[in-house]
Amino acid sequence: MAWFQRTFRLPAFRRGFHLVTDQVASNVPEIGRVNIGLAHIFIHHTSAGLTLNENADPTVRVDFESHFNKMVPENAPYYKHNYEGSDDMPAHIKASLLGNSLTIPITNGRLNLGTWQGIYLCEHRNHASGRRITVTIQGE
Amino acid sequence: MAWFQRTFRLPAFRRGFHLVTDQVASNVPEIGRVNIGLAHIFIHHTSAGLTLNENADPTVRVDFESHFNKMVPENAPYYKHNYEGSDDMPAHIKASLLGNSLTIPITNGRLNLGTWQGIYLCEHRNHASGRRITVTIQGE
Amino acid sequence: MAWFQRTFRLPAFRRGFHLVTDQVASNVPEIGRVNIGLAHIFIHHTSAGLTLNENADPTVRVDFESHFNKMVPENAPYYKHNYEGSDDMPAHIKASLLGNSLTIPITNGRLNLGTWQGIYLCEHRNHASGRRITVTIQGE
Repeated sequence: MAWFQRTFRLPAFRRGFHLVTDQVASNVPEIGRVNIGLAHIFIHHTSAGLTLNENADPTVRVDFESHFNKMVPENAPYYKHNYEGSDDMPAHIKASLLGNSLTIPITNGRLNLGTWQGIYLCEHRNHASGRRITVTIQGE
Repeated sequence: MAWFQRTFRLPAFRRGFHLVTDQVASNVPEIGRVNIGLAHIFIHHTSAGLTLNENADPTVRVDFESHFNKMVPENAPYYKHNYEGSDDMPAHIKASLLGNSLTIPITNGRLNLGTWQGIYLCEHRNHASGRRITVTIQGE
Repeated sequence: MAWFQRTFRLPAFRRGFHLVTDQVASNVPEIGRVNIGLAHIFIHHTSAGLTLNENADPTVRVDFESHFNKMVPENAPYYKHNYEGSDDMPAHIKASLLGNSLTIPITNGRLNLGTWQGIYLCEHRNHASGRRITVTIQGE
């Protein structure tokens, strides 16, 4: 039984959805030592999120951005929290809709993702800095 | 301390929301050996999801399908990813809204669900095949 | 390696989003014994949820309530499950959108949350009783 925990910062990304599977995995080489286990990936922010989705066609990520902008519009007349900019309150709501952590099975030293699954960083702010991530690995 | 991991395929379901608690649990009898622990249930796909919701009245599942079809419509004018059919891009978005995994406490050899909680398979494609699931059990 | 599991009831909250980080953590003092680990927080209900979001400005929680009421309206003409009141079916949908559990890293005996992250109880019913929570702690 092993526990590993690594905290690192992903670089700043522009607003939108970004495939970061390799950047996350490369920070946690200890995955390779686990036969059966789980990887928990956590983002320490309230205006960005993590999700798993299609890793092949980049237009899927473009369509995510379009759809979430429509489903959670800026400048809704009922927003009271607006002093940090028009992108701020929608960013909070999108972060909770998509979630702030992922748990992925580890099998034979690898993240056991489906063929088409990749890790998306969901960046909802217009001008974000890098984002802090903690990955916790456990297994045997 | 024990770790168990089982991968299996749920049969093909029609588009919609389906109660699969028993089908999932029956594939992992090892839950019965765990006194305190967690079950992690993961779907290896990007156009289907898993959620917990009401296990009694089947019209709840019908209303989920109606609502998600309205909240994430087909043929939105801003979709660029549409060569796999009008149900494809909405399926990806719904999958990320609902999530691709569940973590459920195990207590005294059973999934410790609330009285009204059941596991839903959220099938967002019109003509899906079976769906691959990995359950990882850990506990003592 | 240690496992702890505690079940408790949060008091009844009015419909809306409520910061409960301290109330949750105070029920699980065993977090203080864990150097590296994970806390899993689970709500045993289908019309309330848990999410992480901004812990400072209370208007964020007000805006969450406004936005989810718009995104998941009461009395939608397509709802069939309506005999438990107009707030019931929206409550189920909101619960699945926001999720029913959180997994948070533990580092050096504390929930390793971001500076601005707090635990929200998302209460979607007009007249709910208290809500049952199970926290499962594991780590070393």
